[in-house]
Amino acid sequence: MSLVTLLTDFGDVDGFVGAMRGVLHARAPGCVLADLAHHVPPGDVAKAARVLCRAAPCFPIGTVHLVVVDPGVGSARRPLAVRAGGHLFVAPDNGVLGLVVARLGGIEAAHVVSRRDLCPPDASVTFHGRDVFAPTAAVLAAGCGVAEVGPPAGTLVALPSAPAGSVVEVDHFGNLVTDLPPPGGQVVVGVAGVGISGPSSSYAAVPRGELVLVVGSEQTLEVAVRDGSAAERLGIGVGAAVSCTAGDSSGESADAG
Amino acid sequence: MSLVTLLTDFGDVDGFVGAMRGVLHARAPGCVLADLAHHVPPGDVAKAARVLCRAAPCFPIGTVHLVVVDPGVGSARRPLAVRAGGHLFVAPDNGVLGLVVARLGGIEAAHVVSRRDLCPPDASVTFHGRDVFAPTAAVLAAGCGVAEVGPPAGTLVALPSAPAGSVVEVDHFGNLVTDLPPPGGQVVVGVAGVGISGPSSSYAAVPRGELVLVVGSEQTLEVAVRDGSAAERLGIGVGAAVSCTAGDSSGESADAG
Amino acid sequence: MSLVTLLTDFGDVDGFVGAMRGVLHARAPGCVLADLAHHVPPGDVAKAARVLCRAAPCFPIGTVHLVVVDPGVGSARRPLAVRAGGHLFVAPDNGVLGLVVARLGGIEAAHVVSRRDLCPPDASVTFHGRDVFAPTAAVLAAGCGVAEVGPPAGTLVALPSAPAGSVVEVDHFGNLVTDLPPPGGQVVVGVAGVGISGPSSSYAAVPRGELVLVVGSEQTLEVAVRDGSAAERLGIGVGAAVSCTAGDSSGESADAG
Repeated sequence: MSLVTLLTDFGDVDGFVGAMRGVLHARAPGCVLADLAHHVPPGDVAKAARVLCRAAPCFPIGTVHLVVVDPGVGSARRPLAVRAGGHLFVAPDNGVLGLVVARLGGIEAAHVVSRRDLCPPDASVTFHGRDVFAPTAAVLAAGCGVAEVGPPAGTLVALPSAPAGSVVEVDHFGNLVTDLPPPGGQVVVGVAGVGISGPSSSYAAVPRGELVLVVGSEQTLEVAVRDGSAAERLGIGVGAAVSCTAGDSSGESADAG
Repeated sequence: MSLVTLLTDFGDVDGFVGAMRGVLHARAPGCVLADLAHHVPPGDVAKAARVLCRAAPCFPIGTVHLVVVDPGVGSARRPLAVRAGGHLFVAPDNGVLGLVVARLGGIEAAHVVSRRDLCPPDASVTFHGRDVFAPTAAVLAAGCGVAEVGPPAGTLVALPSAPAGSVVEVDHFGNLVTDLPPPGGQVVVGVAGVGISGPSSSYAAVPRGELVLVVGSEQTLEVAVRDGSAAERLGIGVGAAVSCTAGDSSGESADAG
Repeated sequence: MSLVTLLTDFGDVDGFVGAMRGVLHARAPGCVLADLAHHVPPGDVAKAARVLCRAAPCFPIGTVHLVVVDPGVGSARRPLAVRAGGHLFVAPDNGVLGLVVARLGGIEAAHVVSRRDLCPPDASVTFHGRDVFAPTAAVLAAGCGVAEVGPPAGTLVALPSAPAGSVVEVDHFGNLVTDLPPPGGQVVVGVAGVGISGPSSSYAAVPRGELVLVVGSEQTLEVAVRDGSAAERLGIGVGAAVSCTAGDSSGESADAG
């Protein structure tokens, strides 16, 4: 009974994910589906790459991960089937696999989905999630290897990397995830003209409503507001520059700048 | 192990869908659940009918589809169990099944849910999803036929049909789905005072931010903005009139009107 | 094959729930997952307690319910494993279990999760859903008893109780759920300066857009607007005072005050 995860920007209104679930159940009877997320902002490949990197490696080896964040649907961008770290991925060739593949130790095999019998003869140009990616995930879930869906892919498209020292993600709570590694000792992180000392031991180490610096779940520094949104408080988002200085701003308030 | 899909306007805040999942797992042990969508706008039966028609036929024959978009809950509107194209449906008699049943070749059997032992004695008047529809779906998932839940339903309630030549759906991305069939050649579609030539081969056939006409995943014409929202751009929604003229507006810009 | 439900305030953007699903599938192979809700407002423990109380008891005995609405993550608040009414719960000790445990007849056993081998050595301070609660739920799903995860918990944290005679919940539709028990006869409920007679037999007992009083799905009085939002109409929310007077305001319009 194969596990198949789903990651899309389709939301939960139109039944697009529902249609994909139907294709998977119809073509891979007995498969078990698990959602990674479906409210990735429309077309935000960089965010999807981070979500995939966060969640996919938690699944057991052999899981098929189906990713449809695909602003280039219907264009010449290639559909891929990729194996990395024993996990299988089906996704458009738009960079969405870059982070997770790196975390899993690199690509073991990457193929372009081209087998004609995988897709319906009247495949749409707007919904490859249903017509190309889900059928491909279904055959992988049924035991097919990635090499059986088409020729080797060669070099994959890469996302532009974010500039070092920046906010790389804003989460549902408004926490600002940075790319700064956890420091050896106390530091002051500067962002949006504010200096925040830390890292603290938890969000709850400061009073409600105050800025706090913690080591986040991906082992990078994260700026938060306890029981609030740092993104709203500071008025910034992905791409904002952050700095990190050794030492302690003891005596200063967190928002003294 | 029976498949049961769920389609509601319950959102993901209150646990209403969670309660229904519990009833299904408790009454049909081993059933496999699959969501179609839960953020249908509250009470929007016409939208739910389209979502159901899009997603349900992708599932294998024998799937039970549980639909609770039910503004008439607790009133005299009838709860139905319907078979069409080998699929089973449990839904209020408010027109939500019309499109899918037509796509699946028409009704094979339609019955009014009336078996007393299906519902708890203290069934609520506000949550038939939990107290009527989920228990009925559970017995169907366990192998019961639709004729076993109550008497034949006779004629079902029908939704008013949309006027021909209109936007029939706006999706999560702001794409405007029309009821216009795919043309044999190039056409100009007029909507909101704008003329758009096409169909193009994909959303990506035009530059970012431009209007584009494609054949959508339901095989009708669709007006989109590449990497944007056509609904926002044109300020229109479901019901807006659309026209279609043979020919090409070559030389004109897409938004020249 | 154990059932595990998930209730969080994580939303559907970041893959946090996806990561937890991965941990569960990896550590409890064959488990079946069911979502209760994931859009509980961030940190709203009182709302989560109501959602859990509504949905969890619908599941079969033996189900593991995993709750991560946890504003105190990383602080000294204790992670719990609790048995009540044959159901198993894994949650932070912040009061979120209070309502459901009372409904299920009280605590049978409550233990503090402290077994070192449950959590990864590099457990984060910000994501105990992945690093503490999901691994604990997985061992319970695999058959472990709550007493095996750590020492007895003693007294649990309780939520402050809402003042009697108030709106205790606003649902996705804008319905105002009160704590008033169903009356023996006709009553007038006063809220936000308006008097509403009832209870009516269903939302649909009044014309579209009018206020209506019904007995809700939790067997308490509920103020609604047919096909609309009572919360918006009356401009109130959780905590608003409600009164209940025997009799009938016949002759008065519902919004005559």
